[in-house]
Amino acid sequence: MTARRRKATAVGYLLLAALLSTRCGGSGAPAASAPAPAPAPAPAAAVDPLPSWNDGPARKAIVEFVGRVTREGGSEFVPVAERIAVFDNDGTLWAEQPMYFQLAFAIDRLKALAPAHPEWKTRPPFDAFLRGDKRALAAAGERGAIELLMAAHAGNTTEEFARIVTEWTATAKHPTTNRPYVEMAYKPMVELLAYLRANGFKTYIVSGGGVEFMRPWVERVYGIPPEQVVGSRIKVEYAVVDGTPVLRRLPAVDFVDDKAGKPVGIHQVIGRRPIAAFGNSDGDFEMLEWTTSGPGPRFGLIVHHTDATREWAYDRDSHIGKLARGLDEAPKRGWIVADMAKDWKVIW
Amino acid sequence: MTARRRKATAVGYLLLAALLSTRCGGSGAPAASAPAPAPAPAPAAAVDPLPSWNDGPARKAIVEFVGRVTREGGSEFVPVAERIAVFDNDGTLWAEQPMYFQLAFAIDRLKALAPAHPEWKTRPPFDAFLRGDKRALAAAGERGAIELLMAAHAGNTTEEFARIVTEWTATAKHPTTNRPYVEMAYKPMVELLAYLRANGFKTYIVSGGGVEFMRPWVERVYGIPPEQVVGSRIKVEYAVVDGTPVLRRLPAVDFVDDKAGKPVGIHQVIGRRPIAAFGNSDGDFEMLEWTTSGPGPRFGLIVHHTDATREWAYDRDSHIGKLARGLDEAPKRGWIVADMAKDWKVIW
Repeated sequence: MTARRRKATAVGYLLLAALLSTRCGGSGAPAASAPAPAPAPAPAAAVDPLPSWNDGPARKAIVEFVGRVTREGGSEFVPVAERIAVFDNDGTLWAEQPMYFQLAFAIDRLKALAPAHPEWKTRPPFDAFLRGDKRALAAAGERGAIELLMAAHAGNTTEEFARIVTEWTATAKHPTTNRPYVEMAYKPMVELLAYLRANGFKTYIVSGGGVEFMRPWVERVYGIPPEQVVGSRIKVEYAVVDGTPVLRRLPAVDFVDDKAGKPVGIHQVIGRRPIAAFGNSDGDFEMLEWTTSGPGPRFGLIVHHTDATREWAYDRDSHIGKLARGLDEAPKRGWIVADMAKDWKVIW
Repeated sequence: MTARRRKATAVGYLLLAALLSTRCGGSGAPAASAPAPAPAPAPAAAVDPLPSWNDGPARKAIVEFVGRVTREGGSEFVPVAERIAVFDNDGTLWAEQPMYFQLAFAIDRLKALAPAHPEWKTRPPFDAFLRGDKRALAAAGERGAIELLMAAHAGNTTEEFARIVTEWTATAKHPTTNRPYVEMAYKPMVELLAYLRANGFKTYIVSGGGVEFMRPWVERVYGIPPEQVVGSRIKVEYAVVDGTPVLRRLPAVDFVDDKAGKPVGIHQVIGRRPIAAFGNSDGDFEMLEWTTSGPGPRFGLIVHHTDATREWAYDRDSHIGKLARGLDEAPKRGWIVADMAKDWKVIW
């Protein structure tokens, strides 16, 4: 399979999964509840920096690791500059069911654009999308899916796109919880990010999602600045339009930050091997493998979606966030598997 | 011209310029002198944070800008998180004559590899390189130049390459100054980097040079960590070899961080528009333009190589570090042109 073909497969799958599937990826689907305020990072000096974690093996392992690498003079001390921790986003820092939230954004965006594109009514695959014709969408295949995805994401400048994303996060709500999507960040993970930073770690997102879809809101929600976000990219081109310099977003995939792409994305942007990695699916396997196979103390953790009551339960058979190899190999690789139902006091 | 063709041109030019040119890019060529210790960053609390700058218009403009953006409550105050400053490397932070130092590295590397490649003696363009046959090298064209450059840079892992670069910087010396290359960082610029950081700026390198050629030594020399280096890239591939995960460096150009590529590289890695940019050639024009055209206070500075006695003097007609449009447009764009002969008390 060529690199271009792999890119097409990865991106196309995202949209196809959303447009074609009527079933939920896992069991459980939380009912609507009153939106709660966005979780605030735990203060660095709090007595308990991880109040949303039960006192189980996952929490113990985290605290023990942080203690080892920060104990000055200890045999496993790691200098602050090398304390790099990487986090997958979808399913690790916020929810990803019943579809990746970026896909909900793309669908909303296509619907918003449709009135300005009367030609879409008769132009495949847009006609099928507008009619909700799943059979025709399936027939359009990955190529059609990418065309739809590019129409939703490209054709604007980087600054325009950031504004579009910001507006969407302020208004769009999740179909079953009725929460704004940005209020579906996991409280235990937001605490964990703050806990690591309070211990000298630099926290990065390394996500298969689009980097420009994340940057406008991750600082507010996770405390992670835009320059610490690694993600998939579409091509961008510098141009001066009527005297104004802009970066134009082009309808072409530049980089897919998933699976074996994650260590590559880490290398491109960070340039050093992290010492801790957090994921939830087999799309994070290589990131965990790369991180935990370096010399010195290393930490890998998988968030296992086991809570059909408060969130969703899914792993081996899910079309989103599939987790099989990670579960099989975690014990022998020394990776911690956090059980959402048992390890987390609250979800959001 | 296609993107691939542009890449080839940019990369090919680098090597061709070195292999084919017998003249120096500019007038002046410092004589050998005793190596001096590497310049240390100025302490943040020093009375004069820029002791190597004369009290001229360039220094005044720098100090005035930093004062404006750091004065809390002032109309031009910029929050710490947005104080991003970007620096070109070759010709801006360290010297670039008589050839880009990375080319000297590539030539040394090819010579070191040659004994293990007896087939190069009869295989173009390696045979021409080994014979020093400039006519045959010219005939091999950009394609030949890229083949040589890739042989010097690829075919190893990222960690092996970092070791190779580190060894080279410890031993290789500049042909006319006889200094180790890393001791040809400009003292006034190293002070400027430290001065900006002491005022809350995050300092980044944004160079046409290879990102992996810079990362092993820039922290030591400039105080800039590996994750704050943007540069040209060759393709990298994740693989598990005999149970050990590695990132393999492939003989293919992935991204050229020069000219209109610089704002794109900034966007890929940093994700916000800098407020200050420092360059020395027309390869930095778009970076300066992008940086200084944003809203709020902005700063652009061009290092002008005017000192044939202590360094080199070159601009419009140089095959390296050509500076013409920048000189023409600096006044109307409000960019400062620092005159090395007049503005700098010392060079190294």
